[in-house]
Amino acid sequence: MRYNFMNDYNECAHERILDAIVRANREQDDSYGLDSRCAHARALILARLGGAQSDVHFLVGGTQANLTIIAASIKPYQGVVCAESGHINIHETGAIEATGHKVLPLPTNNGKITAEQIATLVAAHYADATAEHMVQPGMVYLSQPTEVGTVYSKDELRAISRVCLLYGMPLYIDGARLGNAFAVDGADVFLPELAKLTSAFSIGGTKMGALFGEALVINDPLLKKDFRYHIKQRGGMLAKGRLLGIQFETLFEDGLYDEIGRHTVKQAQRIAAAVRAKGYELFVDSPTNQVFPILPRELLKKLASDFGYAFWQTFDSENDVVRFCTSWATPPEMVDALLDGIPAKR
Amino acid sequence: MRYNFMNDYNECAHERILDAIVRANREQDDSYGLDSRCAHARALILARLGGAQSDVHFLVGGTQANLTIIAASIKPYQGVVCAESGHINIHETGAIEATGHKVLPLPTNNGKITAEQIATLVAAHYADATAEHMVQPGMVYLSQPTEVGTVYSKDELRAISRVCLLYGMPLYIDGARLGNAFAVDGADVFLPELAKLTSAFSIGGTKMGALFGEALVINDPLLKKDFRYHIKQRGGMLAKGRLLGIQFETLFEDGLYDEIGRHTVKQAQRIAAAVRAKGYELFVDSPTNQVFPILPRELLKKLASDFGYAFWQTFDSENDVVRFCTSWATPPEMVDALLDGIPAKR
Amino acid sequence: MRYNFMNDYNECAHERILDAIVRANREQDDSYGLDSRCAHARALILARLGGAQSDVHFLVGGTQANLTIIAASIKPYQGVVCAESGHINIHETGAIEATGHKVLPLPTNNGKITAEQIATLVAAHYADATAEHMVQPGMVYLSQPTEVGTVYSKDELRAISRVCLLYGMPLYIDGARLGNAFAVDGADVFLPELAKLTSAFSIGGTKMGALFGEALVINDPLLKKDFRYHIKQRGGMLAKGRLLGIQFETLFEDGLYDEIGRHTVKQAQRIAAAVRAKGYELFVDSPTNQVFPILPRELLKKLASDFGYAFWQTFDSENDVVRFCTSWATPPEMVDALLDGIPAKR
Amino acid sequence: MRYNFMNDYNECAHERILDAIVRANREQDDSYGLDSRCAHARALILARLGGAQSDVHFLVGGTQANLTIIAASIKPYQGVVCAESGHINIHETGAIEATGHKVLPLPTNNGKITAEQIATLVAAHYADATAEHMVQPGMVYLSQPTEVGTVYSKDELRAISRVCLLYGMPLYIDGARLGNAFAVDGADVFLPELAKLTSAFSIGGTKMGALFGEALVINDPLLKKDFRYHIKQRGGMLAKGRLLGIQFETLFEDGLYDEIGRHTVKQAQRIAAAVRAKGYELFVDSPTNQVFPILPRELLKKLASDFGYAFWQTFDSENDVVRFCTSWATPPEMVDALLDGIPAKR
Repeated sequence: MRYNFMNDYNECAHERILDAIVRANREQDDSYGLDSRCAHARALILARLGGAQSDVHFLVGGTQANLTIIAASIKPYQGVVCAESGHINIHETGAIEATGHKVLPLPTNNGKITAEQIATLVAAHYADATAEHMVQPGMVYLSQPTEVGTVYSKDELRAISRVCLLYGMPLYIDGARLGNAFAVDGADVFLPELAKLTSAFSIGGTKMGALFGEALVINDPLLKKDFRYHIKQRGGMLAKGRLLGIQFETLFEDGLYDEIGRHTVKQAQRIAAAVRAKGYELFVDSPTNQVFPILPRELLKKLASDFGYAFWQTFDSENDVVRFCTSWATPPEMVDALLDGIPAKR
Repeated sequence: MRYNFMNDYNECAHERILDAIVRANREQDDSYGLDSRCAHARALILARLGGAQSDVHFLVGGTQANLTIIAASIKPYQGVVCAESGHINIHETGAIEATGHKVLPLPTNNGKITAEQIATLVAAHYADATAEHMVQPGMVYLSQPTEVGTVYSKDELRAISRVCLLYGMPLYIDGARLGNAFAVDGADVFLPELAKLTSAFSIGGTKMGALFGEALVINDPLLKKDFRYHIKQRGGMLAKGRLLGIQFETLFEDGLYDEIGRHTVKQAQRIAAAVRAKGYELFVDSPTNQVFPILPRELLKKLASDFGYAFWQTFDSENDVVRFCTSWATPPEMVDALLDGIPAKR
Repeated sequence: MRYNFMNDYNECAHERILDAIVRANREQDDSYGLDSRCAHARALILARLGGAQSDVHFLVGGTQANLTIIAASIKPYQGVVCAESGHINIHETGAIEATGHKVLPLPTNNGKITAEQIATLVAAHYADATAEHMVQPGMVYLSQPTEVGTVYSKDELRAISRVCLLYGMPLYIDGARLGNAFAVDGADVFLPELAKLTSAFSIGGTKMGALFGEALVINDPLLKKDFRYHIKQRGGMLAKGRLLGIQFETLFEDGLYDEIGRHTVKQAQRIAAAVRAKGYELFVDSPTNQVFPILPRELLKKLASDFGYAFWQTFDSENDVVRFCTSWATPPEMVDALLDGIPAKR
Repeated sequence: MRYNFMNDYNECAHERILDAIVRANREQDDSYGLDSRCAHARALILARLGGAQSDVHFLVGGTQANLTIIAASIKPYQGVVCAESGHINIHETGAIEATGHKVLPLPTNNGKITAEQIATLVAAHYADATAEHMVQPGMVYLSQPTEVGTVYSKDELRAISRVCLLYGMPLYIDGARLGNAFAVDGADVFLPELAKLTSAFSIGGTKMGALFGEALVINDPLLKKDFRYHIKQRGGMLAKGRLLGIQFETLFEDGLYDEIGRHTVKQAQRIAAAVRAKGYELFVDSPTNQVFPILPRELLKKLASDFGYAFWQTFDSENDVVRFCTSWATPPEMVDALLDGIPAKR
């Protein structure tokens, strides 16, 4: 195979990150996230939050970040509202339920849910005479970008945030690929907006050029207390915590995080534009690093000997939806090669 | 109000049950279900299972019976498949999730799910390359009768049982109103069928004339071991356990359980037939003790001064769906009175 | 056997309670604790709390009451401090841990723990540099009377309450046999003291003459919110809830609860006094309804043909500690008969 | 400070590990532990198990490995037996309880528990007439070396393994610092013994020269099924899983794991021997990489300006117990310098 577009974690880490880890290897430092590098990374992130006095924690992975903040934020009888395509609903093996909480999915066509959907659900709950027999919606989970690469606008987030405020529900955003949302043309949701509109959000490292790791930013003062106990209990506290600190230092020191997002999105959108220009349709109109073309099954078979991609779903008797994913590591020439392999639609 | 048809637990217990409790009051007996009355009730139920060597436990309530058997039967990463209208999915405040397990709902129009639906879901799970990232379907939960009063036939259950066997999933039936299913015209699923086709099922007492209590019948030898530990841990073990024993003794000694079912269903079906004869439609075609007529809002307002019923949902601009419920205690003359209050449709 | 002193739930309910249930049997009432009888029972209990604006809920059993209030009161990383002999630590099959929380036991010789023990534990936790790696003491659980029948004085409770206040830990008292503590000579802790000094406490019914049931009194406003969701989720909400209402109405209408406590304790203390007078020692000096004499094994064997008792532990090569338990139902003449069977020590 | 002996994770990773990660950085590989490097690391470990057909998984951290295997191995009403000083009992913020299970601690003076202690506990459980009201001992957890650096001999493990077999309890060994146990003089427990005597054990990476990561070796066929679901659910499955594969490849390719153990233990035992020779006593006689001298408080204060160590506990009015920890990275000259700073006892 010449290049695998299957997902955005087929290679490891941006070389500047690896270099920083190698350089610091023999420096002795404190453990469990209380070290100097985490402190510095925390400061760098804080400096970009538009003045918010948030807490920043570094956790090992995304599922962990999600289950830890959710279990920490709601009461035993409360559930978490999300899109039916939400990662916590379908791709974490019931990690949220394992902490005792129901996931309350809302239907979606494009990975996003609306303020109106949420308000309707919650209002219906409180209006029901038997509400006590049902799981109370206690929190809202969004992904930015979503699992199919779409992006919430500032207006959309503001409306959702208002509903959450009204009903006293924390709003949490899973930013596993957050940097790609920043790189979209016309993007209007950046770190300061997230710090203002959410109770907590994560800044994904794994899918944005790090070896692994997520920064969890907690804005709501009520959720800050004793959060490190939660991290430890759920197994998310790394002994050599500075490994996380160094990675986020590097990502946020000189704009590397944004640079990675720009590269990643640019390569994906080159695929999207070219595929469209060749006459094919896209199954989801995703402006970030996932491209979902509808392609002839025969062509896909041919492509497969040179390029990896993910099968998404059957479209019709002759065509399938597939996913191409780009990352910090995707060489532009491999995108060229891929596109060379896709002829214009007859 | 003359009579409340709101639900089937507005009165307390059949008088024969109360009498038996009063008579035994000063007899000393062992505790926590190890007493002579539970032993006798167990024997009476066993004698009706068609020869099955099942274990029979008596638990305080239905939610407890459900959460205890489900949490006992599946592994941490497994979930329980049920109808989206299943009691465990919508009316137990997330009791199943509180034990760590996801509920996997399937769509339904009449409260029932099919063997095909289950097989499709499970096959899709195992066919998915990322199955390990998803909750594994580990068990099937049905209600007989369902939450809207419909009933599974022997053929339907047999087909579901076969799918469960094929995939190694225990099949559990919540029989909160089980006796009503036995009383349906043409019923072909009775205790021996349940003992043969399910891994476990409950025989509801609360809604069938008892003060409270459910008998949990475990047929699958793998689920029998140490089950009393589970009951104690989940808070379902009654200190004065013979209270449960006496109630189920009385229900199963002289056919009282069946008698109650027959009375209950008869009164409900009188309502159903009369309402239909008067020209109204039923929202769900339920052969048991819940009747769901579509009635003019104006008429309902009038009825409400004399009779209680449950609002189910808005039907159109002039009509609502409501539910009338009958029980062991429903006096036939109150059904007459209710029907007198419903004029033929213009 | 002439009489079984094994425990205080060998008979069922005080006849006045049964009478009331029988009388109300055909009255239609609301369900799930929202009925008129629960409302009345609530008012009767409230009227005895010395003016406290508490919430009163009625739950099916003791283990349920304990696990529901504890899981409702603390955060995932917190545990509950109790005596190592505490019911939640040793006799609930890990019901508390099943809700996700560690039980933090303190050593005790007489079933009680002290304010100083608690303060030392908690202070040590917060003083530890690695506190985040340990379970945070989040709540205190006491039993009144304790599992071996001893009783906290007002001064002892006040001191414990102060420590709890200081560290922000709810104080919960399990009153499974609460009425017996009220009947002790020199008792100075009654309902108003409990309402003032605790965050929540239970008033046991099962072991105090009811068929079953515990009243849970919540004094701390922070714990009141949405508590009925918790009850439903944990399976403690009875459909025919008025069964609980009627029982507590009867217990608190005309002083029956206190009367039962006086009778129960009187019979037990008659045993204690007589056994002592005959020259035997008591293993625990318990002023309530459990008596723990150290008796010759040979004598015990003889007694066993006429009287039931619980083996407690081996004392030495010739003697065992046993437990005699009295209840609302214990006939004084059976105590006489028992004492006749115990000769003076040689 | 010249050197910090506080713990064995103050530096990052052995340089050969870092080199291997850097070299493989741009190679595309599969994710979530299904990559070629994990496969190779698995094979290398398997080859050292003396022929056992074990499953080998790579998890992110130790707390996760512990909670995942324990929650996967026992039933809801079962608990895990361990030393009271066991990591799961005191240093994981209740991670085990958060999965629903009680930890059942046994007293110990040296971090170890005995087969006899375990057998006594379990036998007492099953002999108790009220066993169903108590947590059933369902599994045994040991640490090798223990939390205070002591080591189980083959005879000790064999005896414990026999008790576990007898009662059907899986035996799990937490090998966070396993390589150090191999390096002890007279060691007789190596990988083949662990594969034979345990149901599962972990091979710690974090404290043995890796950046992070633990290999979990499952020997018991009953525990192997669907284990990757458990890992994913608990958040222990790394997206870029080959990071773990590469590290364990490097550790097990050319004997690096053993080499690191030998270096680490040698430096620690140099401290132990020298401190003893200078006339001081050791609080625990630990043959691995943790040394617990009892030193004058005044001397400790002086040492602190040049060397880090962990305060363990007050010994008497003038002396404290402290802990010195060595690692793969400890320079021999720093041990020399430390020892130079400790004068002979007067």
